[in-house]
Amino acid sequence: MEKRVFNFSAGPSMLPVEVLEQAQRELVCYPSCGMSVMEMSHRSKMFESILAKAKADLKELMHIPDNYKIMFLQGGGSTQFAMVPLNLMNKNNKADYVITGQWAKKAAEEAKKYGQVNIVATSADTTFNRIPELDSSKMDPEADYFYITLNNTVYGTHWTNLPDTGNVPLVGDMSSSILSEEIDITKFGLLYAGAQKNLGPAGVTVVIIREDLLGNAMDFTPTMLRYDIHAENDSLYNTPPTYGIYFMGLVFDWVKRQGGVAALQKINEHKASLLYDFLDASSLFRGTVVPKDRSLMNAPFVLPTDELNAKFIKEAEALGFVNLKGHRTIGGMRASMYNAMPVEGVEQLVAFMKKFEMENK
Amino acid sequence: MEKRVFNFSAGPSMLPVEVLEQAQRELVCYPSCGMSVMEMSHRSKMFESILAKAKADLKELMHIPDNYKIMFLQGGGSTQFAMVPLNLMNKNNKADYVITGQWAKKAAEEAKKYGQVNIVATSADTTFNRIPELDSSKMDPEADYFYITLNNTVYGTHWTNLPDTGNVPLVGDMSSSILSEEIDITKFGLLYAGAQKNLGPAGVTVVIIREDLLGNAMDFTPTMLRYDIHAENDSLYNTPPTYGIYFMGLVFDWVKRQGGVAALQKINEHKASLLYDFLDASSLFRGTVVPKDRSLMNAPFVLPTDELNAKFIKEAEALGFVNLKGHRTIGGMRASMYNAMPVEGVEQLVAFMKKFEMENK
Ligand SMILES: Cc1ncc(COP(=O)(O)O)c(C=O)c1O
Ligand SMILES: Cc1ncc(COP(=O)(O)O)c(C=O)c1O
Ligand SMILES: [Mg+2]
Ligand SMILES: [Mg+2]
Ligand SMILES: [Mg+2]
Ligand SMILES: [Mg+2]
Repeated sequence: MEKRVFNFSAGPSMLPVEVLEQAQRELVCYPSCGMSVMEMSHRSKMFESILAKAKADLKELMHIPDNYKIMFLQGGGSTQFAMVPLNLMNKNNKADYVITGQWAKKAAEEAKKYGQVNIVATSADTTFNRIPELDSSKMDPEADYFYITLNNTVYGTHWTNLPDTGNVPLVGDMSSSILSEEIDITKFGLLYAGAQKNLGPAGVTVVIIREDLLGNAMDFTPTMLRYDIHAENDSLYNTPPTYGIYFMGLVFDWVKRQGGVAALQKINEHKASLLYDFLDASSLFRGTVVPKDRSLMNAPFVLPTDELNAKFIKEAEALGFVNLKGHRTIGGMRASMYNAMPVEGVEQLVAFMKKFEMENK
Repeated sequence: MEKRVFNFSAGPSMLPVEVLEQAQRELVCYPSCGMSVMEMSHRSKMFESILAKAKADLKELMHIPDNYKIMFLQGGGSTQFAMVPLNLMNKNNKADYVITGQWAKKAAEEAKKYGQVNIVATSADTTFNRIPELDSSKMDPEADYFYITLNNTVYGTHWTNLPDTGNVPLVGDMSSSILSEEIDITKFGLLYAGAQKNLGPAGVTVVIIREDLLGNAMDFTPTMLRYDIHAENDSLYNTPPTYGIYFMGLVFDWVKRQGGVAALQKINEHKASLLYDFLDASSLFRGTVVPKDRSLMNAPFVLPTDELNAKFIKEAEALGFVNLKGHRTIGGMRASMYNAMPVEGVEQLVAFMKKFEMENK
């Protein structure tokens, strides 16, 4: 078989090779069905059991309490930017947002179409290299919800201490950190994540919502953008992205085999420290995020010049470390190390960085 | 390998086995990439070329003129029910709909949220067993568009002669007939189709729109539901359903190898006539649709009693003819014979129906 690369893409991104191999074996015929999962009616017993198992496994892995609904939707994170205000900005028609980068910014811009958006804090002044300090006097106790991006994929920041929002439901975009670390669901009213980083192929979005927040969507909300509709129909209001749901289910099984989320978190902390410790010790490479807010998943770093950045990316690629180029809006490098990135991937990258430093300083 | 069944599901439905086998070979490593298509960044050269080729092939297969944009979106047909009015009901805030079954009905209900809906005609009085006659005095020359479901998946009806709507743009839901027959795109302002019947896995929707209809979405339209945004960004405004797009591309290649849409139409006509001719000759089985409006893709039929229907479905399933149960709203049987259903599938089904008739009359 062709040699697989170490793919540091921010998303879509590396998936566990064992899961890809299982999906490959089952692609033409899912066991004892005589058809591919792609060919199954979403109303068939076979598919319904795939869906039910995926839900039950996610519930177990994330310790999701019974008063939360789990949905598998289409539209990606960007559709959530609209669904959140359309469904939740329904009491006082206003919400609090913390801007930690372009994803929170896009979410806030979209929400402005539907109500009043209060920017509690932003780290724009330091090019989003930190989670901003929160001044509780700026938090609106009448806000319908309080919105954060748990892990900023572009700038590589991460909320370690969740804000205390009192009775205001906390809404979290965890697209780039779901299943990478333990999280206390009960702190949230709503959590969502696009699948294309830690879960599977692009095209499925996981939404976890506290039941009391369902209902009361704005009148003009498209039916397909109403959480209550999808919750009532158990993600089968219309044809769901069946293959993506199946694949996520295989990933959930894989996570369980790794020992669950706590075990993956340990491995992720180890991978991240391999890279961050090197960056801190290096006189040539530099991490761009303040240490306390560093992401376990996305590590942006720079060399002293654009020429060196370009040289590094090129040489890395030739060695099979691909997609290390930073986001088009910030440049430099970014190594995304999602759950599926093996420890050896990071070890070998750091070894190459050491060599590059020796040759270029 | 496990024996594959003949899957008569209305969608998701049978896919060409050669395409499934190719996807299987390439699942872990797309040639010369060292990664799965699922793992490719949507901004990578590799994926962009997959996307560009899929678009170019569809343009060629459907003879789509240069003044139309092709988009690959998320959300399924049901999201189009909202996108159509949100984006097109923008001049006189009203539209004409013809109701040929529950899909057109759902589309019309959704449109009522956003403007005035004029029901030009409906075939509800005969349980949607025909395409209704159009009384041109009921057509509104000031409508922003005129909406039809080209092929009704549930009731098995099909528009053979398109309505003449003058300057009013014709909008067509071709979810269950895309690539099954030649169609004159220039008669339409907008056409859309969910992938899960003739194109690939659920989770991608093809939208073909005449450029002059872009822009002018209603103010409160969610960004992700704006055609202009997706057209300007060439389906890359956000992360598209990359794997579904890749798979559709393989299906487009397959259609080309079959000789294109005209060749498939001939085969589809042959398959349909095998079944309809038998239904017409049979004294036990009966097709439910008036002959002139019969669909090539979905053929509903009944036996004299519910007991016989149930017996037939059960015996058929045991022989590997699966998903023949009619839609939950109408009962009886329905055989969906999309492009990927081989002629032998229909031949063998008809042979079994003949045997069933002999044994049960
Ligand atoms: C944190 C975060 N939120 C939202 C999005 C947008 O997701 P999508 O492209 O699925 O709309 C992304 C995409 O990378 C992301 O990283
Ligand atoms: C003609 C037609 N339109 C629309 C739909 C709805 O599509 P989706 O389930 O992708 O929302 C279907 C589903 O079968 C259909 O057959
Ligand atoms: Mg952000
Ligand atoms: Mg340093
Ligand atoms: Mg209809
Ligand atoms: Mg008959």
